[in-house]
Amino acid sequence: MTNPTGKVTLLGAGPGDPELLTIRAARRLAAADVVLLDDLVDPAVAELAPRARIVRVGKRGGCRSTPQAFIEKLMRRYALRGLHVVRVKGGDALLFGRAGEELAALHAAGVPVEIVNGISSGFAAAAELGVSLTHRRHCQGVTFVTAHLQDHGEPDWAALAAGGTTLVIYMGMSRIERVAAGLLGTLPAATPAAVVQWAGTARARAWHGALGALATDPAAAGLGSPAVILVGMAIGEALAMLPPQAGQPAIDAERLSDAA
Amino acid sequence: MTNPTGKVTLLGAGPGDPELLTIRAARRLAAADVVLLDDLVDPAVAELAPRARIVRVGKRGGCRSTPQAFIEKLMRRYALRGLHVVRVKGGDALLFGRAGEELAALHAAGVPVEIVNGISSGFAAAAELGVSLTHRRHCQGVTFVTAHLQDHGEPDWAALAAGGTTLVIYMGMSRIERVAAGLLGTLPAATPAAVVQWAGTARARAWHGALGALATDPAAAGLGSPAVILVGMAIGEALAMLPPQAGQPAIDAERLSDAA
Repeated sequence: MTNPTGKVTLLGAGPGDPELLTIRAARRLAAADVVLLDDLVDPAVAELAPRARIVRVGKRGGCRSTPQAFIEKLMRRYALRGLHVVRVKGGDALLFGRAGEELAALHAAGVPVEIVNGISSGFAAAAELGVSLTHRRHCQGVTFVTAHLQDHGEPDWAALAAGGTTLVIYMGMSRIERVAAGLLGTLPAATPAAVVQWAGTARARAWHGALGALATDPAAAGLGSPAVILVGMAIGEALAMLPPQAGQPAIDAERLSDAA
Repeated sequence: MTNPTGKVTLLGAGPGDPELLTIRAARRLAAADVVLLDDLVDPAVAELAPRARIVRVGKRGGCRSTPQAFIEKLMRRYALRGLHVVRVKGGDALLFGRAGEELAALHAAGVPVEIVNGISSGFAAAAELGVSLTHRRHCQGVTFVTAHLQDHGEPDWAALAAGGTTLVIYMGMSRIERVAAGLLGTLPAATPAAVVQWAGTARARAWHGALGALATDPAAAGLGSPAVILVGMAIGEALAMLPPQAGQPAIDAERLSDAA
């Protein structure tokens, strides 16, 4: 390696609340020289890195976003100067985050990489709803998918539904009608479904109902991105309303009972 | 609720290393009155709960295990006495952990429940391998399944493989021949596959190769339970060997190169 002291940590910051970072993630941030921060990551995460230069590299919104190639170049450049770069991603670093491209670019440059896992928002969404992702009476597993393919085509909803797992769909709110229609080709309209917006943050809110209402009711209830869509029999189990507690957001009980 | 101060926290302790707990999980343990600890959870986790009475409720091994109904009764009893019970599960509390049953039992008893997410071992396994679970060039998602169904039947491997997601298979080592045979009915023998034992702990070790060798080579390399099996094109991407670092276990590079 070019420089024995520089390195990159690909770090999953979890769904939002800084309390949901792992202890290791907090330690890496505290020791970081440079932090590259995604848009969806809570700005409070930056406060955990008091020594670091903070670089925002968000990729959504109306303004011009930071191209992936430039992010990779930044990481490489700082690391090869001997700095400890922490690349912060929302959720887990290895799920829907282009970690594959970033790992390849860093390895090609001889930069040592460490990965620190985080809580993905699908898990946080299930926690908000108070349901298990895999109730053993209903399914043998859970599938996490994006509603968008690389070529902007449509995922094979029939094949995904046929797998019999609970489906947890990321980045699906802007095309929720197509998601619902795709799944209704295989699954009954009565299949339990839920939407959780801002899971794992203080402003978390949820809708819960049936797949047949998924295309219309969450939007009518005012839910939008960023949100996770959950579909499957396990989601209908014992939907629990967690009592509001410090640091533990309540789900929107009113919307839940409306939908039930 | 019967007692306003008692409650149960269902807490995912992550894959093993206590540094992989969330900050919230560490705080709940520090405040716990009673901790119910699964077998697979690192005993060091108990040290994070200095105030608590520790009750081991493991369910594997040769000796008689603690029946699920008794665990639920214990939680209920302590909580209704006004105590803060922390039920610690390996990985995430909502994936393959009978959280569904426990949530239902606690709600029926009027016991308030909080859920604290953790890092599931499938994510830790991908971190050990240095691969993304969902490289966007190869797949649109990832499926987490158990190799065992409730009725001890076989999962529908053809349907799961047809979904086109990366497959992450838990509790599959004791029946790895059947898992491999099931997947080879649909997937090519050259499909990348990996096994990571003790992911997210200091003794993590890995095998990486092709699906055609999955039935025999990991066992020949000495890998056994507890381990996670990963199958899919994304797993073949840029398999990285992380440099050994304090608190960051190295993968078994020799086995990896043997298998490559």
